[in-house]
Amino acid sequence: MKISMSHGAGGEMMQNLISEIILSNIQKKSVNGGVGLDDLDDAASIPLDGYEIVISTDGHTIDPLFFPGGDIGKLAISGTINDISVMGAKPLAIANAMIISEGFNSEELERIIKSMDQISQETGTSIITGDTKVMEQGKLDKMVITTTGIGIAEKGKIIRDNGLEVGDKIILTGSIGDHGIALMAYREGFGFETSLKSDVAPIWEIVEAALEIGGVKAMKDPTRGGLANALNELAEKSSVGMIIEEDKIPIKEEVRAVSEMLGIDPYEVANEGKIVMGVESELADDILKVIRRTKYGAEAEIIGEVTEEKHVILETSLGGKRIIEAPIADPVPRVC
Amino acid sequence: MKISMSHGAGGEMMQNLISEIILSNIQKKSVNGGVGLDDLDDAASIPLDGYEIVISTDGHTIDPLFFPGGDIGKLAISGTINDISVMGAKPLAIANAMIISEGFNSEELERIIKSMDQISQETGTSIITGDTKVMEQGKLDKMVITTTGIGIAEKGKIIRDNGLEVGDKIILTGSIGDHGIALMAYREGFGFETSLKSDVAPIWEIVEAALEIGGVKAMKDPTRGGLANALNELAEKSSVGMIIEEDKIPIKEEVRAVSEMLGIDPYEVANEGKIVMGVESELADDILKVIRRTKYGAEAEIIGEVTEEKHVILETSLGGKRIIEAPIADPVPRVC
Repeated sequence: MKISMSHGAGGEMMQNLISEIILSNIQKKSVNGGVGLDDLDDAASIPLDGYEIVISTDGHTIDPLFFPGGDIGKLAISGTINDISVMGAKPLAIANAMIISEGFNSEELERIIKSMDQISQETGTSIITGDTKVMEQGKLDKMVITTTGIGIAEKGKIIRDNGLEVGDKIILTGSIGDHGIALMAYREGFGFETSLKSDVAPIWEIVEAALEIGGVKAMKDPTRGGLANALNELAEKSSVGMIIEEDKIPIKEEVRAVSEMLGIDPYEVANEGKIVMGVESELADDILKVIRRTKYGAEAEIIGEVTEEKHVILETSLGGKRIIEAPIADPVPRVC
Repeated sequence: MKISMSHGAGGEMMQNLISEIILSNIQKKSVNGGVGLDDLDDAASIPLDGYEIVISTDGHTIDPLFFPGGDIGKLAISGTINDISVMGAKPLAIANAMIISEGFNSEELERIIKSMDQISQETGTSIITGDTKVMEQGKLDKMVITTTGIGIAEKGKIIRDNGLEVGDKIILTGSIGDHGIALMAYREGFGFETSLKSDVAPIWEIVEAALEIGGVKAMKDPTRGGLANALNELAEKSSVGMIIEEDKIPIKEEVRAVSEMLGIDPYEVANEGKIVMGVESELADDILKVIRRTKYGAEAEIIGEVTEEKHVILETSLGGKRIIEAPIADPVPRVC
């Protein structure tokens, strides 16, 4: 079999590749009973005395490297911080491995590093180690960055992606589709002006605020595969369903317009600064309130609730119902 | 400035790129006073109660992916385990981020994963999390793998690369040059038969045996830049010199012959299963004895000793002396 773009696009085809080629050929997949490879959560964990060390790794191949709202450096650090954060762990440190093409401009590299530094400072996360490799011209398109995050939580306090229970409320922390659609619009080089920008941002502040209230049952950041994938993964892993109100899903008018023009479902494209959170019903309003006070959470909404039937159902604005399926793959390649 | 191959080759040019573009633009470079980015050690550390969590990351771009003695999977896991090991920390877990070219053969991917699994099992290190991305055909040569290792040591027990003192003995755990020269010979497609194989192997067993004796002052695995770079880094960081006996450096006859034919200094090419270790003089023989009993340490030798003058001096077989300089760059590109 030949690997195709869809195998890296966060949907069903990627899940299949991962379970058939990777998971089935690895024997040792967890440490001390922590979250491991088989769990396919946003990060893994290593229990250690009173703590859980939380680890997540992510390769970044985004094209172009600089885009409206950010660049590969901001994306790499934010994305890794977010994967640690949705486990309910405080991000502490980043390991930064860069592979650069021969002939790459060092001024552009410097811009990217400065961008990483900015997110590191904003979140109080240190970049403690790294690696730099160079590949011959023609062997790599510009550069790729793999960042690995290390975070920490009290033992037993990490949040998994399978903890939803019937009756829990679903919070979405802001507007959907911005990253994928902004990237796509920019790459297509639309002739008209668009103010669309990626939402790339670190969301630890949001998570921290929510955890202080308590009652957070499950979280996921809707990156590859978008909101559709995140909701389905959360539901499937918790063996529950959801009912989501379309009217409540924050979405920018321009994102909706460009999506329609491109024929892309905005629920299926990557977001880089959002969280989908399942919370205890009685605490949902309190959590929403504190999230809205954070830098990146002002537009948060309760978009639905957890149900018994095993589907993610969308109640449309017109009063109809349709199933939100997990996408086969992200419709927009190389957005992260 | 355009990035060149030498900027990724482990020598002086890489050091300059790293300090001028990377280190100077990052503010937060360590956590809780642990080993951080500025230390440019083989790994970083995060002190946590009675422990130090040790983290190392490495991007692997080796060409070809399959070579005599191993493949990119074996190299990635071994290399990362080795970086954790030379810090004196027990390797616990690996995060595995793969970026694959569209059209890559899934059977080859499976071979690589199986190879990773084998080293993981041999060393008791788990592969606990990962990431898979795909890049369009023509944008990436086959695949790259970034592995990040997490290890653990008792607080204050990690071994740094700057702990050498005058009088310490230098142990080299086996023959030098095998990886770089085997790769080069294979790539050049020599018409004659060569039995040269990469030395790629995980060396935690060697480190563990040495640590049980005690008296280990500094360690480094001589990868990019080879033995010449490792000795110079150890000496420079400890503000000492060394005198090394050429006769004592284990080197295979065939490695010497091929090196001469290619005009490459075998001391300057990458090794992937060796350690250079500075140890207390009185314990050196005991340490050597236990190292020689391990799977990959049978040919270990005491190759020299730490001196006051700030150079790495080689006493040649003929009785002469010459300075071993840190190479400007590894003479063989893409060997790791």
